[in-house]
Amino acid sequence: MTSILEQEIKEQPEVIRRLIEYSADQAKAIMDALRGKFNYILIAARGSSDNAARYAQYLFQIINEVPVALATPSVFSLYHKAPKLEGALVIGISQSGQSPDIVSVLEEARRQGRPSIAITNDPSSPLAQAAQFTLDLQAGQEKAVAATKTYTASLLAIALLSNALAEDKAAFGEIQHLPAQIEQAIEQSMQQISRMERYCYMQHGAVIGRGFNYSTAFEVALKIKELTGITTVPYSSADFLHGPVASLTRGYPVFGIAPSGIMAEDMSAIIDKANAMQAELVVISDLEELLAQAQLPLPIPPGVPEWLSPLVAVIPGQILAWQIALSRGLDPDKPKGLSKITETL
Amino acid sequence: MTSILEQEIKEQPEVIRRLIEYSADQAKAIMDALRGKFNYILIAARGSSDNAARYAQYLFQIINEVPVALATPSVFSLYHKAPKLEGALVIGISQSGQSPDIVSVLEEARRQGRPSIAITNDPSSPLAQAAQFTLDLQAGQEKAVAATKTYTASLLAIALLSNALAEDKAAFGEIQHLPAQIEQAIEQSMQQISRMERYCYMQHGAVIGRGFNYSTAFEVALKIKELTGITTVPYSSADFLHGPVASLTRGYPVFGIAPSGIMAEDMSAIIDKANAMQAELVVISDLEELLAQAQLPLPIPPGVPEWLSPLVAVIPGQILAWQIALSRGLDPDKPKGLSKITETL
Repeated sequence: MTSILEQEIKEQPEVIRRLIEYSADQAKAIMDALRGKFNYILIAARGSSDNAARYAQYLFQIINEVPVALATPSVFSLYHKAPKLEGALVIGISQSGQSPDIVSVLEEARRQGRPSIAITNDPSSPLAQAAQFTLDLQAGQEKAVAATKTYTASLLAIALLSNALAEDKAAFGEIQHLPAQIEQAIEQSMQQISRMERYCYMQHGAVIGRGFNYSTAFEVALKIKELTGITTVPYSSADFLHGPVASLTRGYPVFGIAPSGIMAEDMSAIIDKANAMQAELVVISDLEELLAQAQLPLPIPPGVPEWLSPLVAVIPGQILAWQIALSRGLDPDKPKGLSKITETL
Repeated sequence: MTSILEQEIKEQPEVIRRLIEYSADQAKAIMDALRGKFNYILIAARGSSDNAARYAQYLFQIINEVPVALATPSVFSLYHKAPKLEGALVIGISQSGQSPDIVSVLEEARRQGRPSIAITNDPSSPLAQAAQFTLDLQAGQEKAVAATKTYTASLLAIALLSNALAEDKAAFGEIQHLPAQIEQAIEQSMQQISRMERYCYMQHGAVIGRGFNYSTAFEVALKIKELTGITTVPYSSADFLHGPVASLTRGYPVFGIAPSGIMAEDMSAIIDKANAMQAELVVISDLEELLAQAQLPLPIPPGVPEWLSPLVAVIPGQILAWQIALSRGLDPDKPKGLSKITETL
């Protein structure tokens, strides 16, 4: 029987195609209205949406040279403090748009007269109501508890906003290749699912990525945790060397997120180090020389620019987490102890 | 034989006393020079210093109502991009002051004519040379690879800067109680060390804190990872409910950082949830009702205000990590695969 999670994973090329077609103009209108009105961006999000915020942190800084702060929502919602938001553009990301702590940050932006954008799958949600502008993910209802299509849609919404701010038409052409690239990544990972049973008895692991794909490391670690209950920890390759590298022993599972780009060299060094310690390696990459070093290579299509690679590199991680859940006899649609909408203060 | 780590843990009351005595005026002079010259703070740090930065993130936002962004150093050092720092005060934290990626953020601040502060244990380091102002931790050379005294000293440096910016003399009085409170926390934890052997065979665990003590959760998790190689993951109680709660099973080790204050209620709910799942609980708190629910209660002295509690609540975590390392026959001074100065790009 096909799970809802499987259906939603496989809907992603279509969700991305639809969002490019219907929301690029909207992203442009929002950024045309806001250009020159902020000198940094403050983003409020939790869970998978917070991982999308990590992507935004690199994207806006590298492409647009705008500093990005990730909000600590409890400052607003529990300590009842209102940092002075002069100079800030405030963005809230939440598929449901329901979590009161995220909404409270956008409400404070409104109170202080600061511009704000909601990125959400529900344009009638409290988050959308609190925001000056809303970018609707149009992903269709997400029924599986673990977010997949709303995660990649959130990444794309951020990429569209960044691209609109940069007014870079050549880069927009790169965005248009994404639906086909995501489709190919799904096909490539589906060819590897029989090998994924290998991780049925895995007890813990480290997921390592850096730069644009720091977000992917967090999201893959979260998918594995949510769907299987296995303790997996995300790291940047730099932070990993500042301490956690001490965990590496023979057979310790390391998941390297290593697409082409500036960070490939850094990830290659981590992969060498893990191999020297006889760690177990799963590598998500389009680079043959890195894939060749893995016990389980998870290829993604070549030709994806690094700034868009998080939308493609997360796919094998979603499929791996789903398959490990199946191998452990778990229901991928209803992970133990979780509900679809998490309301935190 | 006494390890260097043990000596450095026990030096902390003296290090903190010295820093209050010799650096409060300097913090005041720095903040008098910078007041009104920034509308947000950007902090660059790695490893334990990045955990100190997390404390700064809550402190400056809650006490001073100034937004705080944590820098992503690779944007500067590897992507060679320079986000426009208009409005920013840039702070670099590094005990050695050597890591090139952190230095590169301060150098960019100088290039753009933005104010900057180095918090470091080496006032002749490249970080100090790149900064406009330096706050010297004066902690004496830290010889053990795992940071302890430079971590609490970094927290205090941040508290002194925040207090100076707020010009709050009553709150400065609270700072002056810290040396005695840290001393008492060390004594209380030392009385529990025979019980810590219980975690000799632990394979993984979650460390949960929120608000000011989100930093403590990260630092305790990092100490356990560095000193023992055990995979421990830090969470805010809110993020934990957005997914990782699925990991909770009978006997799963949960370390709750739960001092008195606004977050005690939130942490109490997590402790109840963990108990309902028959998880294993270690609780660091001054609250009898929370300590009573733990398999291993680690008390800290009462009367520490929440905003300073991270300097005290980390102590039992340092001692626990050190004791688990000893129980596993590991050298606490030289964790496998780590060196004292980690230079990352």
